[in-house]
Amino acid sequence: MNNYSPRLSRLIEALRKLPGVGPKSAQRMAFHLLDRDRAAAEKLAAALGDALGGIGRCKTCRMFCEDEACRYCTPARRAGGQLCVVETPADLMALEAGTSYRGRYFVLMGRLSPLDGIGPAELGLSVLQEVLLEGDVQEMIVATNPTVEGEATAYYLAEMAKAAKVKVSRIAHGVPMGGELEYVDGGTLTHALSGRTPA
Amino acid sequence: MNNYSPRLSRLIEALRKLPGVGPKSAQRMAFHLLDRDRAAAEKLAAALGDALGGIGRCKTCRMFCEDEACRYCTPARRAGGQLCVVETPADLMALEAGTSYRGRYFVLMGRLSPLDGIGPAELGLSVLQEVLLEGDVQEMIVATNPTVEGEATAYYLAEMAKAAKVKVSRIAHGVPMGGELEYVDGGTLTHALSGRTPA
Ligand SMILES: [Zn+2]
Ligand SMILES: [Zn+2]
Repeated sequence: MNNYSPRLSRLIEALRKLPGVGPKSAQRMAFHLLDRDRAAAEKLAAALGDALGGIGRCKTCRMFCEDEACRYCTPARRAGGQLCVVETPADLMALEAGTSYRGRYFVLMGRLSPLDGIGPAELGLSVLQEVLLEGDVQEMIVATNPTVEGEATAYYLAEMAKAAKVKVSRIAHGVPMGGELEYVDGGTLTHALSGRTPA
Repeated sequence: MNNYSPRLSRLIEALRKLPGVGPKSAQRMAFHLLDRDRAAAEKLAAALGDALGGIGRCKTCRMFCEDEACRYCTPARRAGGQLCVVETPADLMALEAGTSYRGRYFVLMGRLSPLDGIGPAELGLSVLQEVLLEGDVQEMIVATNPTVEGEATAYYLAEMAKAAKVKVSRIAHGVPMGGELEYVDGGTLTHALSGRTPA
């Protein structure tokens, strides 16, 4: 479709493969890198090469991992007996940064989504099952997102935990702290109402 | 700010340097590349290296150029006597793809914007002046965008052409072909009215 010279075309096409980047922004990015910030282009190329070569995935928790031992699967975390299941590495980071939870994790790298071909195998649930059957985990905390797919995933995970005789809990969903009822969507309000606790 | 492992941090930071990419999208991009599309990451790294090594800029028209001779500064185009001044490579490509214009170009790589430190020097206007004084150009067509800065740039360019005794014209601005008056903004309508031609 584009009629740029070969190298420029290839760069624009490669940038378009980034999620959320359409033809126009890919073009703008390429021009920006070539015209205004060649140092950024060099850094990006180096960082990509470095990441591809040096970032793997932890066999136990599926988090990205670039060291010999996963920083989230330490003996100390293991000893706590809690395992929190999240959808993405970003969710893990949010919990680490925003809470005092320092137990283990399991990162699904997605959520059940049959229409997109994402089933239990794609989420590595057989690995999770092994972890549950090892006997170290006293409580599995499900922290999937409160979306339709996240809820379905949570239900599936709860069944797995029950089958492995592991206690399972779900993080609370409701009105965010500091949030105003007026501006909270109906689904959240419904959740908050039905999940009410004695005051 | 982020607490990812070093290589992952560096990748996210490098992606954030792309125009229009905030911390959240940089994270999403990094996860996507590492998790779902390592081939795309490899291609992007290679395309960046290739582009940095192989794409320069034409000394005459400032367009990106990766061959010995610029494809837009051929003797045939030169012979036509027309030179069209555009703001960006994308504007050049739009004119090439959408019109039958096959004259020369001059790519400003921006527009006059004193507040951003973009003056005549940054736009290479001394190169343009040399081109105008060479005597090959019979008509300079100003195709800057109809924004405040584009208009100021157009005015400046017109003065340059007059000083070099080169005829100067401006592409027409008005209601787009197929556009409905009802949906066209007031500025465009004002332009269209004041630029009316005898029917
Ligand atoms: Zn791990
Ligand atoms: Zn050229």
